[in-house]
Amino acid sequence: MIIDCHGHYTTAPPELGIYRDAQQAALERDSLHVGEKGSLDITDDQIRESIENNQLRLQRERGADLTIFSPRASGMGHHIGNEHTSKFWTQHCNELVRRVCDLFPENFVPVCQLPQSPGVTIESSVDELARCVEKMGFIGCNVNPDPSGGFWTGPPMNDRYWWSLWEAMQDLDVPAMVHVSATCNDNFHATSSHYLGADTTAFVQMMMSDLFSDFPGLRFVIPHGGGAVPYHWGRFRGMAQDMGLRPLNESLLQNVWFDTCVYHQPGIDLLVDVLPAENILFASEMVGAVRGIDPTTGFNYDDTKRYIDGADLSDEARAMIFAGNARRVYPRLRLPEER
Amino acid sequence: MIIDCHGHYTTAPPELGIYRDAQQAALERDSLHVGEKGSLDITDDQIRESIENNQLRLQRERGADLTIFSPRASGMGHHIGNEHTSKFWTQHCNELVRRVCDLFPENFVPVCQLPQSPGVTIESSVDELARCVEKMGFIGCNVNPDPSGGFWTGPPMNDRYWWSLWEAMQDLDVPAMVHVSATCNDNFHATSSHYLGADTTAFVQMMMSDLFSDFPGLRFVIPHGGGAVPYHWGRFRGMAQDMGLRPLNESLLQNVWFDTCVYHQPGIDLLVDVLPAENILFASEMVGAVRGIDPTTGFNYDDTKRYIDGADLSDEARAMIFAGNARRVYPRLRLPEER
Repeated sequence: MIIDCHGHYTTAPPELGIYRDAQQAALERDSLHVGEKGSLDITDDQIRESIENNQLRLQRERGADLTIFSPRASGMGHHIGNEHTSKFWTQHCNELVRRVCDLFPENFVPVCQLPQSPGVTIESSVDELARCVEKMGFIGCNVNPDPSGGFWTGPPMNDRYWWSLWEAMQDLDVPAMVHVSATCNDNFHATSSHYLGADTTAFVQMMMSDLFSDFPGLRFVIPHGGGAVPYHWGRFRGMAQDMGLRPLNESLLQNVWFDTCVYHQPGIDLLVDVLPAENILFASEMVGAVRGIDPTTGFNYDDTKRYIDGADLSDEARAMIFAGNARRVYPRLRLPEER
Repeated sequence: MIIDCHGHYTTAPPELGIYRDAQQAALERDSLHVGEKGSLDITDDQIRESIENNQLRLQRERGADLTIFSPRASGMGHHIGNEHTSKFWTQHCNELVRRVCDLFPENFVPVCQLPQSPGVTIESSVDELARCVEKMGFIGCNVNPDPSGGFWTGPPMNDRYWWSLWEAMQDLDVPAMVHVSATCNDNFHATSSHYLGADTTAFVQMMMSDLFSDFPGLRFVIPHGGGAVPYHWGRFRGMAQDMGLRPLNESLLQNVWFDTCVYHQPGIDLLVDVLPAENILFASEMVGAVRGIDPTTGFNYDDTKRYIDGADLSDEARAMIFAGNARRVYPRLRLPEER
């Protein structure tokens, strides 16, 4: 059993983009535009085609069984428009992911995005999380630690601003992947510096706060192999020590997991070397940020299963990374045969 | 011969902090305060004591010969006050580093900070660089890619805003270490998420622009082992390929070097595995962000020479990392016997 915990619907039919364009056109006329949810004219056949030729084909070719699937991360765009923009957009994106999972129940299970919006309370995200989990069978969510899109003008994750979302996640027993979206700051490139910087930033916010004392049941997955964290694990261990914090293994690793979206063997080797296998979740983020074939291996950069297969791991550790850990982190996950 | 390319005067006598406090007090009364440069009452004996018991003692204990030495990075604080604040502060900090190098000419060579200030032209930095290099014998500078202190509101490094500084660096034949300073954004912690995020960000700005076509003689050192870059070298190679850029080894590695401030053996092993030895410069950044002893090794986390000694490197590669590369990157560097 191989569960890929990090897949996005990056191949949605163009009607989704047309809806978003219409939202943005309305916002250009009036930045306070409210509008209405409206509808998406996407047929089941369109969804089937967009998935069968992409994520499903690759899942089969590469030998994974199930993908934990969420709306396109760079498309969340929480910085765009206002809270109404974000709410309607998010509802459509989540409902579309639900349809993918209904059409391919053997292959995909849904995780939702949240209708975050800069300067707006987190309550609408709590509502959407509850709707998705309780009414639509979602098993987790993606949380954007920087809804400003690269200016980091909001409160850090240990600020009380977030409290009701953390409470809801605990109550619903769902984890969050900490995942930023597109950036509107020219200093950053979305899927490289912004994503990796945010991964590291979120880790440090968790490390240097009492978040998990206040919310011992909170669970976060840090994507992209944890940004810079495992490469600098010595730095972080040493900082924790200098600051009088508990060792990271004790203070964080009951609540934080790292995915395997690291696109070369040396990176995966380091990840599995410095972090306990219990804290690593298999992931590829395909079809995603890197789509080509690595000429040094002859295989796709994002075919991360090959790196896990090639890493120095016991069978037991490999099984945990491929599936066992995901079952613990996402307790609402039901395999097809368990439903 | 072992050259440590990354040391800061983190142990300056308290008079330096008193000067800074006075600047900040004046700015609280009037944010447009100009003031004057004033003076620092620090004796040579104070400097000797601050160095002998710290950086010099550790340099000797750990077996390095020479440290490329600059003002404390987190103290640069370019976001504080206005251009006058930054100018006077920078001049004092650089002059103090010059005094250290005059008192210990066998052990330290100077690199300057620049009087950057958000929203202000880069010309004053060009002037200070010229003063330091031409009149005071400095061999390089530290450039802050985010003088806003964590909000990233300035132009990226490939913007024409920076052009005259890049020209001056080329003309003077000096490299820059890309090094942010303290952060005034609660989302970031200076020496972890802010430093490492900025390292990655600067690399991507270089990678995704024509900076080195426009300035083929420009040389940058990316500190802290390059942030997240080597750990994600596959991701960056793949992105370059997807974007139709030249391979990174061709497009960047004539102009970009990575230091070894990575505080555990697995991180250094990865660095020397994925990057050519020609592009790695020995560094420890002591006395710096991590000062404790790693209980898993019994040695200081930042005693990076041990990791280089322990890495799988040929004698030739190790010699390049320890000294040869620094001689190429910092051509104005003269060893004591060459002066």
